[in-house]
Amino acid sequence: MRRILFMLSVAVMSGVAWAQAADDSKPATSNLPGVEYPRVHSDLRVTFRISAPNTQKVQVIPGGNDNGLGQGPFNMQRDDKGVWTVTIGPVVPGFHYYWLQVDGFACNDPATQTFFGWNKECSGIEVPDRTLDFYDVKDVPHGEVRAHWYYSKVTAMWRRAMVYTPPDYDRDAKVCYPVLYLQHGAGESERGWTSQGRANFILDNLLAEKKAQPMIVVMENGMVAPRAGGNPASAQPGAGSRRNEAFGELVIQDLIPMVDAAYRTIPDRTHRAIAGLSMGAGQAMQIGLGNLGKFAYVGSFSGGGPARSDPSKLEPKPLLVWMGAGSAESSRMTSGKATVEAMTKAGVPAVWFEAPGTSHEWQTWRKCLYDFAPRLFQK
Amino acid sequence: MRRILFMLSVAVMSGVAWAQAADDSKPATSNLPGVEYPRVHSDLRVTFRISAPNTQKVQVIPGGNDNGLGQGPFNMQRDDKGVWTVTIGPVVPGFHYYWLQVDGFACNDPATQTFFGWNKECSGIEVPDRTLDFYDVKDVPHGEVRAHWYYSKVTAMWRRAMVYTPPDYDRDAKVCYPVLYLQHGAGESERGWTSQGRANFILDNLLAEKKAQPMIVVMENGMVAPRAGGNPASAQPGAGSRRNEAFGELVIQDLIPMVDAAYRTIPDRTHRAIAGLSMGAGQAMQIGLGNLGKFAYVGSFSGGGPARSDPSKLEPKPLLVWMGAGSAESSRMTSGKATVEAMTKAGVPAVWFEAPGTSHEWQTWRKCLYDFAPRLFQK
Repeated sequence: MRRILFMLSVAVMSGVAWAQAADDSKPATSNLPGVEYPRVHSDLRVTFRISAPNTQKVQVIPGGNDNGLGQGPFNMQRDDKGVWTVTIGPVVPGFHYYWLQVDGFACNDPATQTFFGWNKECSGIEVPDRTLDFYDVKDVPHGEVRAHWYYSKVTAMWRRAMVYTPPDYDRDAKVCYPVLYLQHGAGESERGWTSQGRANFILDNLLAEKKAQPMIVVMENGMVAPRAGGNPASAQPGAGSRRNEAFGELVIQDLIPMVDAAYRTIPDRTHRAIAGLSMGAGQAMQIGLGNLGKFAYVGSFSGGGPARSDPSKLEPKPLLVWMGAGSAESSRMTSGKATVEAMTKAGVPAVWFEAPGTSHEWQTWRKCLYDFAPRLFQK
Repeated sequence: MRRILFMLSVAVMSGVAWAQAADDSKPATSNLPGVEYPRVHSDLRVTFRISAPNTQKVQVIPGGNDNGLGQGPFNMQRDDKGVWTVTIGPVVPGFHYYWLQVDGFACNDPATQTFFGWNKECSGIEVPDRTLDFYDVKDVPHGEVRAHWYYSKVTAMWRRAMVYTPPDYDRDAKVCYPVLYLQHGAGESERGWTSQGRANFILDNLLAEKKAQPMIVVMENGMVAPRAGGNPASAQPGAGSRRNEAFGELVIQDLIPMVDAAYRTIPDRTHRAIAGLSMGAGQAMQIGLGNLGKFAYVGSFSGGGPARSDPSKLEPKPLLVWMGAGSAESSRMTSGKATVEAMTKAGVPAVWFEAPGTSHEWQTWRKCLYDFAPRLFQK
């Protein structure tokens, strides 16, 4: 990559036309193997391309207004062979959901892996940040991500939890670990944190550098009460406290007992944390601060609205309330900062974190986890 | 389900119109949560429905000619609101890949989970077989499916193996297990056997009934040499022996040593098996029979063509060569039976299996695994 950048600089300085320099683009790493488009250019513009000769109109739709791809829809231009192309950006580095609209029909770009978000399988694009490598796959020991099935009485169903176990977990059967419960946002699933968020690689890298305590990370599906028969695409982030409550019951009554039975945990409050993003941030605050006998650490990544709890009445006192948001998320910034100030004033250890340059998107939450995880289980 | 069938029978016997009886249809279990279509009717007809008011033509495309959905494309009919519908079948029970063609553009039905096949993320539909429950999630102890990252020198990359560990794996750190290496088909991935194939639930159920020996199952991506820069959709199943050879090197040089180091295995030939489906069947036969010092059991599920090895020269002798195919796969039936006869004649323990009523599809391979796994590691 550095070599290409150097060559690009030389090319630009030499007065070579932009059209040639643009050939330094590469297929996105989120593409299916061997698929050429979408491509990410050196200057972080992105080119999408599909072949659809018999269609009238094709657009690229970013997954949400806050999406780092910018405000869509982006109209693709048709060539004489029916190949549609659009170049957008420069875009914000990180992972971005998107899909296509083909003659008005919303469907995925067949070029990419799919990522569960917006209550459906979405296309996605990974745009590299050359200044960051904390979520890359590196030459370090890797933990496992285990799909663990268990029966939940609260939901009367078999469920799948995703469980990260640190690299040495299987080496010494006597060592026990603290546990972080880590939740996705509305419309996502238990796969979000490892697939879009790369939580396992973030932990692997932190552990390799001895920046965090080895821990187990448990990721479940927080969408425990989808509306029966409804269109899941109409579900609103954070809508309905009943959804949060149902997930809280699941965590307290089913999930924690299962995890403490199936894994070598240290089953007390000072070795148990809960955090989440967006809707999951609200769930983490509600479940964590509502069950301080079980959780000593609570993390809110891009949470919305003020905390419902009176900080002075939190009992037993949390060891940490951590809140963060992307610098481009103005309202979440304001409410989060205010909550942290109130916590601090009431003598609760609280931290405010600002992810530079990103908004309501996975790049913010990757940065949140990277700052949050090292602060856990230090006492 | 039995109650619904009973009610349906009563309704039909009572002379209630078919249109009403058809209301007993249910959303496919492969749909996203809360999504109503596609629906599976009691008689195994399937109704697909999407809303696409601004399109001219919408079709349902089964994933392949052998697909149990029947010969497509199936033209959907538009109503006056732009909702397109088609009912097909009755179809063959099991899992079937499909996608849509919207004004000629191949894209997924947004209604379903996605499944990696045909070198892309596909829509899929699970059609229940009322006579079978061996691959259902049951109230039995469940093993884990672990995503395990490791570095492969052969491919010079970090790779992800999926590893099934049986329910008691974490209970007793002294017990060691035999290992089955289990491969998907062309255009699929290391996720195929657990996602489409439900291999973990098949093993869970066999183990709960004490019909098989507890074993570790390792699933890797056999598509180790996608053509650089090519369109993966043009890759042909089984094309290119170099692909098989590269995967064989990976298995022998990287994968087996990693598995034997990371898991509590019994690292000898009588406790190591290899099997696969379609392209993976060819790989299993080639790698297994070519490395009999490492594998004593070899399974070929819907393999194509005759075995390349002379059965009388196999050394050391396999403890089992198991071959099977769907009864609707005529050419694979013929060649598989012939190979089993030749093996038997040469004194090699060999078994032929026929999956009744199914073709080149996952229902055949689920049945193959269910018959094959209990025969392993008995000596």
